[in-house]
Amino acid sequence: MTPDEFRALGYKIIDWIAEYRETVEPRRVMSHEAPGAVRAKLPASAPEEPEPFERILADFERIVVPGITHWNHPSFFAYFPSNTSLSAVLGDLLASGLGVQCMSWQTSPAGTELEEAVMDWLRQMLGLSESFRGCIQDTSSNATFVAMLCARERATDDARLSGGLQSIAAPLTVYTSEQAHSSVEKAVLLAGIGQEQFRTIETDGQYAMRVDALRARLEEDVRAGKKPCAIVATVGTTATTASDPLVPIAKLAREYGAWLHVDAAMAGIAMIAPECREHWTGIEEVDSIAVDPHKWLGTGMHLSAYYVRDASYLTRVMSTQPHYLRTAADDKVTNFRDWGISLGRRFRALKLWCLLREQGTSGLVARIRRDLANAKWLEAEVRKTEGWEVVAPVPFQTVCVRHVPRGLRDEEAINAHNLAWADRINEGGKAYLTSTVVAGRRIVRVSVGSEATELSHVKKLWALMQETAGT
Amino acid sequence: MTPDEFRALGYKIIDWIAEYRETVEPRRVMSHEAPGAVRAKLPASAPEEPEPFERILADFERIVVPGITHWNHPSFFAYFPSNTSLSAVLGDLLASGLGVQCMSWQTSPAGTELEEAVMDWLRQMLGLSESFRGCIQDTSSNATFVAMLCARERATDDARLSGGLQSIAAPLTVYTSEQAHSSVEKAVLLAGIGQEQFRTIETDGQYAMRVDALRARLEEDVRAGKKPCAIVATVGTTATTASDPLVPIAKLAREYGAWLHVDAAMAGIAMIAPECREHWTGIEEVDSIAVDPHKWLGTGMHLSAYYVRDASYLTRVMSTQPHYLRTAADDKVTNFRDWGISLGRRFRALKLWCLLREQGTSGLVARIRRDLANAKWLEAEVRKTEGWEVVAPVPFQTVCVRHVPRGLRDEEAINAHNLAWADRINEGGKAYLTSTVVAGRRIVRVSVGSEATELSHVKKLWALMQETAGT
Repeated sequence: MTPDEFRALGYKIIDWIAEYRETVEPRRVMSHEAPGAVRAKLPASAPEEPEPFERILADFERIVVPGITHWNHPSFFAYFPSNTSLSAVLGDLLASGLGVQCMSWQTSPAGTELEEAVMDWLRQMLGLSESFRGCIQDTSSNATFVAMLCARERATDDARLSGGLQSIAAPLTVYTSEQAHSSVEKAVLLAGIGQEQFRTIETDGQYAMRVDALRARLEEDVRAGKKPCAIVATVGTTATTASDPLVPIAKLAREYGAWLHVDAAMAGIAMIAPECREHWTGIEEVDSIAVDPHKWLGTGMHLSAYYVRDASYLTRVMSTQPHYLRTAADDKVTNFRDWGISLGRRFRALKLWCLLREQGTSGLVARIRRDLANAKWLEAEVRKTEGWEVVAPVPFQTVCVRHVPRGLRDEEAINAHNLAWADRINEGGKAYLTSTVVAGRRIVRVSVGSEATELSHVKKLWALMQETAGT
Repeated sequence: MTPDEFRALGYKIIDWIAEYRETVEPRRVMSHEAPGAVRAKLPASAPEEPEPFERILADFERIVVPGITHWNHPSFFAYFPSNTSLSAVLGDLLASGLGVQCMSWQTSPAGTELEEAVMDWLRQMLGLSESFRGCIQDTSSNATFVAMLCARERATDDARLSGGLQSIAAPLTVYTSEQAHSSVEKAVLLAGIGQEQFRTIETDGQYAMRVDALRARLEEDVRAGKKPCAIVATVGTTATTASDPLVPIAKLAREYGAWLHVDAAMAGIAMIAPECREHWTGIEEVDSIAVDPHKWLGTGMHLSAYYVRDASYLTRVMSTQPHYLRTAADDKVTNFRDWGISLGRRFRALKLWCLLREQGTSGLVARIRRDLANAKWLEAEVRKTEGWEVVAPVPFQTVCVRHVPRGLRDEEAINAHNLAWADRINEGGKAYLTSTVVAGRRIVRVSVGSEATELSHVKKLWALMQETAGT
């Protein structure tokens, strides 16, 4: 492809994206394709001869787009958002165009220094002190895993440099709440710690970790000769956006010498609005934090911010210094290759830089507040409507609801009913929301926070929910 | 940003990229910025108010671009390439525009099924049998780590589900060659296996793993009560692109029950040219393979292809099934969230799809063959020039050289001389190459394979090398 061909095609794709964003609302939110339908339209092998790009674009529209579930749709209320703001699309395009690999400072100084700068900008926006330094990880699951590996090494005095986890006498234990994200258990298992040493602590009526239960479990384990290695607290759980009480948990972490990691993947972004920071009081006492700008903020995948109190510890665990990677600048600069698992690094800071500047902190805070208010509006409507329940506090932008038809008392039937109406909404294509099970009850999560979602969309959703659930 | 503003800015950025690619050649390859220079030009905090995007673009040119080391420059001969072909730039732009999150089939069926399709297309191009299934990982370091975690779990009968690596009686051991990439040792250490159980096997005169030494080490370890868990073989090492002999290594892996992972991050792509496949004879006998389309092939970061013989084993180790991630389609579809560490997944298959179709397999094979021939040309020139040595076989596109000035016999002085002339070339900005140390000797690697590199650029580099080294 010549640069001139690229120009013409690039304009077309820019136009397509602009039009897509303008016309996303009438589209079905959740794709209606059957399993295998997309694959059946694709050839079995790559073409031998080059194809005109126009044909690829036509196939993109014909084959790919019908198989898309539209995460940037204003009626996307499922999971948590994965917003990709248009300014971030442009920033990411610049990164693709440059095509640089930012593993080391020398392999593109601007790649490293812009990442340092925007991670520090975001730190300030989140209200974190200068004792935290940040880097970009691909996802929070990955960041949590990195935290778990660091915790394991700290608890074993760097056993990786000798006999490894295989040589440890007192088994390491890890603690999190029963409401923690599945990536915590995955990280513990992948770190080699083993399910038998993984503790899921009970939660209170608000789905926050019970500190008394945590303390009891720590005491019990230490008495049994085990060694607490890490505690993972959550600010904004996946099911109900509950937050664990960081102050007493941090106190226990210090007392027992455990690493304290905070998974604030979704709700961390709310902290750019200072009034939300009560939900992570105590954050200054933790060892590491994961917050995802690629969720609510709008950078698009993969941009998870990982903040650590002691970066030198992180780099000791993650660094390798083979001859072919050493550069003359190494002792004067940051080499982000030593801050995570992967060596190769795309220039991801660019899209965050573009987003932060194009929106300004005031613009981003205003959008977060809009979503918080919209969620509050929905909460109030649900609360005052007969047959409907708000089943968990609404500290952020997710409203967990349940509909109990008049006269229905059987819990299983109520669960089935709630799963059914949510599925009917999703199948209908006018909105997309996901359900989960909390304390044995099927609940439906309304996660407000797609960039395009205004109050009008939440109102339409609420009408659809009532109509579909049959009230 | 409105869609209309996005259109106008998008065109500008498309133009900028086209012009950048047209004008990259006169630019310095390696950035000349001093440590801290980029950061010093950036404000200390994010702006409160939105800024016009034109100002961001102006800063991009003024602050970012001078801090870029140009990986897509025709005189980029450092490390291994990280090509981002223009068709892949467009494919990635489509992915950003859609902004979907492909963790599960349901969250965008086309995301999953296109990935299945292109991973299968690439499998065929690489000459691998249908017994392999592929998925996208961000990098080969990550893929190697995933392989190591699977190997550990297979060797311990899924100890993660009970006491973990902490409960294992016979220590697990892992084997690779002393020429293996640093990510192998990192993976072993992060997997908790410990440096004391990590074996770096000697290599032969061609830098390939010595099978007799591997066998001896395996026997010794088993006699000492240890349990061989994994062998990592390399096809195309980082220093010299040497390949380990897979047939006898696979035989040993079977005999000792060890997982055999092949790191073919760079050289794996050469296998799309059938005449190169002699270098991985035996590949059908291995458990997993990592090959990076984001290096030589041209997709841009992050697109590493990870092929496994037993995908069900991979998903058993990596899967989690919390309520909030379950979908009705789960038993009928592939959920790539269960194929790696990270949950969230960008729609990366699109850029590979665009690249494969726009180039056709014939176009891609022709480019790979061009680079192989250019490396052969350089090898021949170096061999016939007095004072110059080719210090390793040239099976692929990397030529490892050394210059020994007449009369210089002291090894340390020769090493210093070679480091010095390579640094002088890099500082001069006309080309970029990296050096390493092999068998105690400083060598300079000329890695041919940037998409823009023609024979003329290799000729210019060779003239520059001779001039700079002072012949």
